[in-house]
Amino acid sequence: MFVCEGNKIIKELIKSDYNIENIYCTQKSKENINFSDINLVEENEIRKISFLTNPSDSLAVVRIPESKLIQSKKIQLILDDIQDPGNLGTIIRLCDWFGIEQIICSNNTVDVYNPKVIQASMASFLRVNVFYTDLQEFLKKSKIPIVSTAMQGESLYEFKVEEPCYIVLGNEGNGISEDVFSLSNSKITIPQFSNHQQTESLNVAMATSVILSQLVGNQ
Amino acid sequence: MFVCEGNKIIKELIKSDYNIENIYCTQKSKENINFSDINLVEENEIRKISFLTNPSDSLAVVRIPESKLIQSKKIQLILDDIQDPGNLGTIIRLCDWFGIEQIICSNNTVDVYNPKVIQASMASFLRVNVFYTDLQEFLKKSKIPIVSTAMQGESLYEFKVEEPCYIVLGNEGNGISEDVFSLSNSKITIPQFSNHQQTESLNVAMATSVILSQLVGNQ
Repeated sequence: MFVCEGNKIIKELIKSDYNIENIYCTQKSKENINFSDINLVEENEIRKISFLTNPSDSLAVVRIPESKLIQSKKIQLILDDIQDPGNLGTIIRLCDWFGIEQIICSNNTVDVYNPKVIQASMASFLRVNVFYTDLQEFLKKSKIPIVSTAMQGESLYEFKVEEPCYIVLGNEGNGISEDVFSLSNSKITIPQFSNHQQTESLNVAMATSVILSQLVGNQ
Repeated sequence: MFVCEGNKIIKELIKSDYNIENIYCTQKSKENINFSDINLVEENEIRKISFLTNPSDSLAVVRIPESKLIQSKKIQLILDDIQDPGNLGTIIRLCDWFGIEQIICSNNTVDVYNPKVIQASMASFLRVNVFYTDLQEFLKKSKIPIVSTAMQGESLYEFKVEEPCYIVLGNEGNGISEDVFSLSNSKITIPQFSNHQQTESLNVAMATSVILSQLVGNQ
């Protein structure tokens, strides 16, 4: 099971194929949510079961669906050991905006059903398929071109994308693992436009927004 | 005064024009930081004075410099009441990457010297000038074109930018205030590439990364 919190996300869940096990909410939220089978609770009870610092008025316990791979003719993201739940949530939300249908994650990537990922995705996890697998095995068999993000690659702004393709993004500290990187067909880089040597490279969520904007928005 | 934490950011501070009042660090960090005037403290003392959930080994107290407006011939950002310190920190970091020299903030925008902004900016605040003012008064007198982000505007991907210009980004909940919006010379929108009506619009930090990538990276 996993937990979702807040009326907006729960209302979207009700309309989705997800299997809701229980909804707990306060009297105030009950009218807003409009679902037959609700457990009325007090605000302090919500506070006790919530994962949030500022709990909302409602919480749903939902069955984790079977993980499946879908066919997509578009750009798909490959995430190699993304650790931060906020980053994964943001990446899912970006995929939803830019029409990306699937994210394929290494088995060590943070779980999509981690409560922080669910909340950061703002219900976008309902619209983007997230699949976990052994990336090296998976990519070895793949016939779709593999484009890795790298420190020394072709400029993103010169790169011509061909769909379908996989765009690989790596771990926050260590980047893409050597096993996966060695399978790449091409390498792209987001060039820096300031001359300051000390500037930190973009974090993986910002890099994803730049890459998707360029490869989807400019086509 | 304001507080900066962590060896990396403190080492950059030492090389900058900022006036450091005090550095507190553990024996371990002392060798790393290499600065003459350091107050040696214990780890548990750092923990007591730190603003971080996971304190680092060093903390600096720094004098807030006088706020000043600089001349820039590039794109500049205008922030109208950005509230979240993480968003402002990320926007400063993006500006540093894309070579934006100045951010002009409404007086109600979160303070750049808020410890969460400083940490999220990853020392980029040392390289991007942030100036606070009454936006309406400031923009009324300005001769630089004002481009506002809006729900119904020209597609970002069709928009031809002319430098210098101001790009206005609004509050996380309410967008750009009417007073400021009415002064815009043009309006741009980041189009959505999926057909899902429920998709949340991009948050202001993601929107900034998409806009700067498009207007700086594609020139």
